[in-house]
Amino acid sequence: MSQNKVTRPGLEYIFHPRSTAVVGTVPDSQNRFKLGNQFIKVLQDFGYKDPLYAVGSGEGEVGGLKIYQNIGDVPGVVDYVITAVPNREVPQLVEQCGKKGVRVMHLFVSGFGEIEDGVGLELQQEILRTAGKYGIRIIGPNCMGIYCPRSGLAFGLDFSRTAGKVGYLAQSGGQCILGIKEAIRRGIYFSKVVSYGNAADINECDLLEYFTDDPDTEIITAYIEGTNHGPRLLQVLSDAAAKKPVIVFKCAATEGGSQAAVSHTSAIAGSSLTWETLLRQTGAIRVYSVKEMFDVVTVLQRCPGIKGLNTLVLGHGGGSCVQASDDCCRAGLKMPMLPVELRQALMKVYKTDAGNIFKNPLDINPYWGMDKAREAFIAVADWDGLDLVLLHSTPEQDPFVPRDFQYQVHTDTLIEWAKLSNKPVVLVMNTNTAPGDDGLPEKSFNRALEAGFAVFPSVERAATAIFRAYSYYQWKSGLSKRR
Amino acid sequence: MSQNKVTRPGLEYIFHPRSTAVVGTVPDSQNRFKLGNQFIKVLQDFGYKDPLYAVGSGEGEVGGLKIYQNIGDVPGVVDYVITAVPNREVPQLVEQCGKKGVRVMHLFVSGFGEIEDGVGLELQQEILRTAGKYGIRIIGPNCMGIYCPRSGLAFGLDFSRTAGKVGYLAQSGGQCILGIKEAIRRGIYFSKVVSYGNAADINECDLLEYFTDDPDTEIITAYIEGTNHGPRLLQVLSDAAAKKPVIVFKCAATEGGSQAAVSHTSAIAGSSLTWETLLRQTGAIRVYSVKEMFDVVTVLQRCPGIKGLNTLVLGHGGGSCVQASDDCCRAGLKMPMLPVELRQALMKVYKTDAGNIFKNPLDINPYWGMDKAREAFIAVADWDGLDLVLLHSTPEQDPFVPRDFQYQVHTDTLIEWAKLSNKPVVLVMNTNTAPGDDGLPEKSFNRALEAGFAVFPSVERAATAIFRAYSYYQWKSGLSKRR
Repeated sequence: MSQNKVTRPGLEYIFHPRSTAVVGTVPDSQNRFKLGNQFIKVLQDFGYKDPLYAVGSGEGEVGGLKIYQNIGDVPGVVDYVITAVPNREVPQLVEQCGKKGVRVMHLFVSGFGEIEDGVGLELQQEILRTAGKYGIRIIGPNCMGIYCPRSGLAFGLDFSRTAGKVGYLAQSGGQCILGIKEAIRRGIYFSKVVSYGNAADINECDLLEYFTDDPDTEIITAYIEGTNHGPRLLQVLSDAAAKKPVIVFKCAATEGGSQAAVSHTSAIAGSSLTWETLLRQTGAIRVYSVKEMFDVVTVLQRCPGIKGLNTLVLGHGGGSCVQASDDCCRAGLKMPMLPVELRQALMKVYKTDAGNIFKNPLDINPYWGMDKAREAFIAVADWDGLDLVLLHSTPEQDPFVPRDFQYQVHTDTLIEWAKLSNKPVVLVMNTNTAPGDDGLPEKSFNRALEAGFAVFPSVERAATAIFRAYSYYQWKSGLSKRR
Repeated sequence: MSQNKVTRPGLEYIFHPRSTAVVGTVPDSQNRFKLGNQFIKVLQDFGYKDPLYAVGSGEGEVGGLKIYQNIGDVPGVVDYVITAVPNREVPQLVEQCGKKGVRVMHLFVSGFGEIEDGVGLELQQEILRTAGKYGIRIIGPNCMGIYCPRSGLAFGLDFSRTAGKVGYLAQSGGQCILGIKEAIRRGIYFSKVVSYGNAADINECDLLEYFTDDPDTEIITAYIEGTNHGPRLLQVLSDAAAKKPVIVFKCAATEGGSQAAVSHTSAIAGSSLTWETLLRQTGAIRVYSVKEMFDVVTVLQRCPGIKGLNTLVLGHGGGSCVQASDDCCRAGLKMPMLPVELRQALMKVYKTDAGNIFKNPLDINPYWGMDKAREAFIAVADWDGLDLVLLHSTPEQDPFVPRDFQYQVHTDTLIEWAKLSNKPVVLVMNTNTAPGDDGLPEKSFNRALEAGFAVFPSVERAATAIFRAYSYYQWKSGLSKRR
């Protein structure tokens, strides 16, 4: 990639400012929890390398930086401004930023189009007029802004410095942060994230277009409450999905949710049916929570090459295997019956099927030793009736085996099987946390993750994500045939 | 209750044996992990008070008990026998138990009707014939037996000694144990639990009948894979549901699940449609996991008196509130819009709706102080458009507030609101565990639980459980009108 000339899409510059100023700071000695001060702290902690300026009131320093009383007083170039001042002060600040030559303003503050008195909407329109006059692009208002590991921009204290291949646009700041945390927990990293709030200027369509053309982004994820640009959204989603997977968590899909959304981000949510139709037409993958969103990313990134839905379901515990089978079939996966010769091969390994199930699902007792477990897996691994393997573990169901030993044996066995698999494979670590949490479920989960596999906290979520990813592949393959 | 004469149903005696013997032990010095030895250890740890005998082979002791070589050698009466010997030895043991006057045998062992060679089924039939001759009742085979806190019977090392009001019958031993652990985690305790496996003798119908008449049981829960007694099950479920809530997790509801069930507990799963119809006719509440089962119990026990579905949804975070509203509406709850005078009352408390939502849902920032939070809740608490209140907390979405402080403030605020509520109230603690788990989500969950409230790990699960409990109340109220 570095050898070739990469064409960067139009919005690229907003992710790579030459310098950043935070407006709305006070001396740390006065109040280090002031929101402007917090943004300075986050950027410094994250390791922002380019010039960083503090603008605000009072004599003193923020994180060791001098406070300028006015954006115009900053000596150097300012490309990017994080705005943490009350809504009524923003119009004047935009004017000052225009004179200073600022290129992008992130308006953190709320109290604009989303509130009920008309003043908020008037303020928002005034800001847009002034910004337009000076060619300033606006992110927000009422949002968290940009997280871009490569350029050192971030808006949370515990965000990962690792850059990845997922782009994320989110209308809600809270859902944006929850999504980032869920992703990092799952071993998923981001190219760029934008929390875009009221979308007064830069909106979901602009960002989708950007991510479609961004060579650093291989998968696009989006939390959207509503849009004012229906026809354009239909087009940009279609263009995006034709090029790379797009996963959309459309929230505010009910009457109650819609009531909330208009007050949250001024979004016109639209009817659920309209959205369902729209998303189906475009090939975007629809999900219903940020957890489900990164479930699908997990399949796309860590379990590629799924050619069909014929699944071998393998785990331990009769009831757990029955339930795993139900959950797989309900999600749309298929479970062909194991051919008689393979069932006989398993009988040879274990001598009896008492306490095991040799059909599909397979119920194989991991306490009978890793050698037998390995032998059993190898006996069925080459079956050409299979497209993929789902391995599931449910510790805590054995009455006599100590809890830590259950987690250890189950996790060891699943990882060993996954390593032996020549088919796409996912692992499920059913994490039933008990009171007096010892972190064991989480540790098992992380161990499987660090071994490099696609890991899920329930069969239902794994199977649902597999079905969604596979449906996208199918849609895309149909698309190229149609073209 | 103790003042009145209580009529005990017919199977009562199986839960209160005068003495218990475990067959299949060896001296601890040889192998203290032998399954028979483990049952002795569990009963002793649990505090079984009545005479306990070990039967097995070898010279020595199990948990300080002498090993008798034969059940006939035991000096006293033996009412209850836990059987942990290989399947082929069971028929002879039943004969010996018959001669000894044993009343109930729990057959832990598998390798009977559920395995594929005909031998297992023949063995099972032979056992039934002999047991019938002597009037011995059989639990199992292929199951965990009885957990009864009052009589000291248990089959797991970490079961609670607290007796409660929930009866639980489970065809799967693993699902039985997972259910018990899930329940205890949720502050739910049991009158009696039976893991009944292949149901060769005592079956799901017998147990449902028993629990229906059992004065210690107020709610019946059941994990069922299949039945050989369709018409009778329809009748006993109807009779049970007319008297107390019955929650059924019918597993093996798909083709894959059914394939598994027949090998697991020899259950004929039947078509999903047949079961759906059957359960609807009876008034039983259907669920799809043990977690969902105890979600419903949580509503029934900790949030009684729900008179309708009009719900106030209150929490913090715009996106979280939008999603909570979607999840409530999708589950069937209703969210009437807050009347204008109540919205004005909230504006008086907070001066502005910037950063809040005053509609329904309510998005109220808990960091603005407990006094304001209390004042806001009191302003809307008496609204007669409401049947219940759903409070939800999503920590970890704030970019700047330390994680532990987020959990503390959110949990404090929810508990305070719940205490102020004069309507039925449920709390949701969205537990997003992050890597490097510090147990904070679990601790917050437990704190709300210990305050006595109905607590759930997601809005979706809370709303679904509320809808199911309410639907049962509606069905029952219709039933009494029809009669």
